[in-house]
Amino acid sequence: KKQYRVAVIPGDGIGKEVAPEGLRVLEQAAKKHGVSVHFDHFDFASWDYYEKHGEMMPEDWKAKIGKHDAIYFGAVGWPAKIPDHVSLWGSLIKFRREFDQYVNLRPVRLMPGVPSPLANRKPGDIDFWVVRENTEGEYSSVGGRMFPDTDREFVTQQTVMTRIGVDRILKFAFELAQSRPKKHLTSATKSNGISITMPYWDERVEAMAKNYPKVKWDKYHIDILTANFVLHPDWFDVVVGSNLFGDILSDLGPACTGTIGIAPSGNINPEGHFPSVFEPVHGSAPDIAGQGIANPIGMIWSGAMMLEHLGEKQAAASIVAAIERTLGERTLRTRDLGGNADTVACGKAVAEMV
Amino acid sequence: KKQYRVAVIPGDGIGKEVAPEGLRVLEQAAKKHGVSVHFDHFDFASWDYYEKHGEMMPEDWKAKIGKHDAIYFGAVGWPAKIPDHVSLWGSLIKFRREFDQYVNLRPVRLMPGVPSPLANRKPGDIDFWVVRENTEGEYSSVGGRMFPDTDREFVTQQTVMTRIGVDRILKFAFELAQSRPKKHLTSATKSNGISITMPYWDERVEAMAKNYPKVKWDKYHIDILTANFVLHPDWFDVVVGSNLFGDILSDLGPACTGTIGIAPSGNINPEGHFPSVFEPVHGSAPDIAGQGIANPIGMIWSGAMMLEHLGEKQAAASIVAAIERTLGERTLRTRDLGGNADTVACGKAVAEMV
Ligand SMILES: CC(C)[C@H](C(=O)O)[C@@H](O)C(=O)O
Ligand SMILES: CC(C)[C@H](C(=O)O)[C@@H](O)C(=O)O
Repeated sequence: KKQYRVAVIPGDGIGKEVAPEGLRVLEQAAKKHGVSVHFDHFDFASWDYYEKHGEMMPEDWKAKIGKHDAIYFGAVGWPAKIPDHVSLWGSLIKFRREFDQYVNLRPVRLMPGVPSPLANRKPGDIDFWVVRENTEGEYSSVGGRMFPDTDREFVTQQTVMTRIGVDRILKFAFELAQSRPKKHLTSATKSNGISITMPYWDERVEAMAKNYPKVKWDKYHIDILTANFVLHPDWFDVVVGSNLFGDILSDLGPACTGTIGIAPSGNINPEGHFPSVFEPVHGSAPDIAGQGIANPIGMIWSGAMMLEHLGEKQAAASIVAAIERTLGERTLRTRDLGGNADTVACGKAVAEMV
Repeated sequence: KKQYRVAVIPGDGIGKEVAPEGLRVLEQAAKKHGVSVHFDHFDFASWDYYEKHGEMMPEDWKAKIGKHDAIYFGAVGWPAKIPDHVSLWGSLIKFRREFDQYVNLRPVRLMPGVPSPLANRKPGDIDFWVVRENTEGEYSSVGGRMFPDTDREFVTQQTVMTRIGVDRILKFAFELAQSRPKKHLTSATKSNGISITMPYWDERVEAMAKNYPKVKWDKYHIDILTANFVLHPDWFDVVVGSNLFGDILSDLGPACTGTIGIAPSGNINPEGHFPSVFEPVHGSAPDIAGQGIANPIGMIWSGAMMLEHLGEKQAAASIVAAIERTLGERTLRTRDLGGNADTVACGKAVAEMV
């Protein structure tokens, strides 16, 4: 029987507070469902590590965590101490690129006990996935500046879409749509304005759709698509977008369901050649770090996504069900959701219900 | 006393139905406030014209409309008959580029009688402007494809930001913020992911802010900014963004206030070297065209923005007030807003209240 090895990286700020709660729940779910997981803890990919070593990660970071079955990640970044391009590009975005985690997967689901900013929506009304391309597109490193400090000054940056990069994310999204009852895929585009890369994206969607005759698909320009997230969130089942469009939709979606504070995410290498990273969508939140009040649900839910990815569907489902029950009780929710539990109390509540 | 000359281009679909109502209201407001406007009507920039002439506009379109004080535009596009890149790039986007309409300005305002999709928001709670760069940025024409139909295939498209282009839109936005009671400017960025152009944008914002010490300014990454449109729309006063970010925010904003069906917009050349275009945000809506049920408020409100731009503030304000009173009456609203008026009845109602 397989023993999973998971690398745990709490990172910065509230990452360090929510990670123990995520582990508490994971350990409990594993015990209950007879899953064997070994956790290795790492202190890099954090400001603390950077302060000591002058870099975000050790030289041999790939040797240290590249053979694990998954990486369980808290949060990174502390803008007042270290610029984002150092902290994020030195860890999170490095993982995405160098571990070829080309899928960024995030659920958008209205949960019990979480007040939606949208009028008249209740749990069950909103339940879809955002599939984001996670390695290329608008987040390229190609471009530059000319004629600095003159009136002729300009900067350019290329959006890059490769056939391989586009096709593999679309395939993942169509597969996911096909596996769901509604079998509905929505593609985010902007081919009426961004006239070279986006028509290419549309072209590849059309080609890929031919392999999935059972999937009903449509496309919306990103402007009206964001409007429809607010006006008609019930329309969606699986939504696929480029790196930038997926980034936007996977923050807007959770906001429509009440808070990005509980949203989980997976940075996934579907082939399993490299470990995938599971992390809450929220950041390190320096403003509330150290107070023990952070909401651990995003971290815990990311743990469920990790178990699902490893193939442990029952253990994963038991965590999601426990989250729903915990959120449903005012006394077990954290303060950001109008409850009065602290981080540890909320984590313990979920663990007990697993 | 000045007589204004306005070019009227109804365009396609419901553009032809809402333009007469816009004109009805404009004529009434002009009469009441002693403003003299002459309207010249043009049939180009439409599918009908394209069908007859094989092009969207005549060769000498600039001679025909380039000397007018403004252009009052309905809607263009009919995807089933003519591809967007022909219809839009052959008219609307051509105007923006060749008449150097570098500001796209759109109000986000919760109006009486329009149900907001957001819970617990009432008229007065949401009232801000989106200022969008309208000529460069992500809508460039630079890029291409290599290795077609092979595994090496890729496409690239450059985002281009010029010092002149960025500084002038930021100046417009800071000026607008400075003229408002709250004096608050929010800049849309994504410098943590789009690592060359967006840090440049941030740099120019910081430099421009030095000229406007009375303006309080902040910046958000576009992902969390869209989330905050939903969660905290009351935070905003003036929001400035690149061509793409502004496009997204100026559809999402109106959606948060209930509908993009009533939103107006101005494509403005602030120096007045070229005419500016005022048009509703909605498109030609082929699905409801010809039925006389289209909501004319977006067109009418665009007329108010046009008068404001021409310096006729009182006449403009009287139209906005008349729109608010009309929307407040269920029997005067169109069906998309739960009323039972048709296009003409709604237009007449606004004209009477002007
Ligand atoms: C039609 C399209 C090209 C246009 C744009 O993206 O600029 C529209 O969405 C708008 O906002 O005016
Ligand atoms: C921190 C930032 C670079 C990152 C992104 O834009 O990818 C974040 O917003 C996310 O969605 O994971």
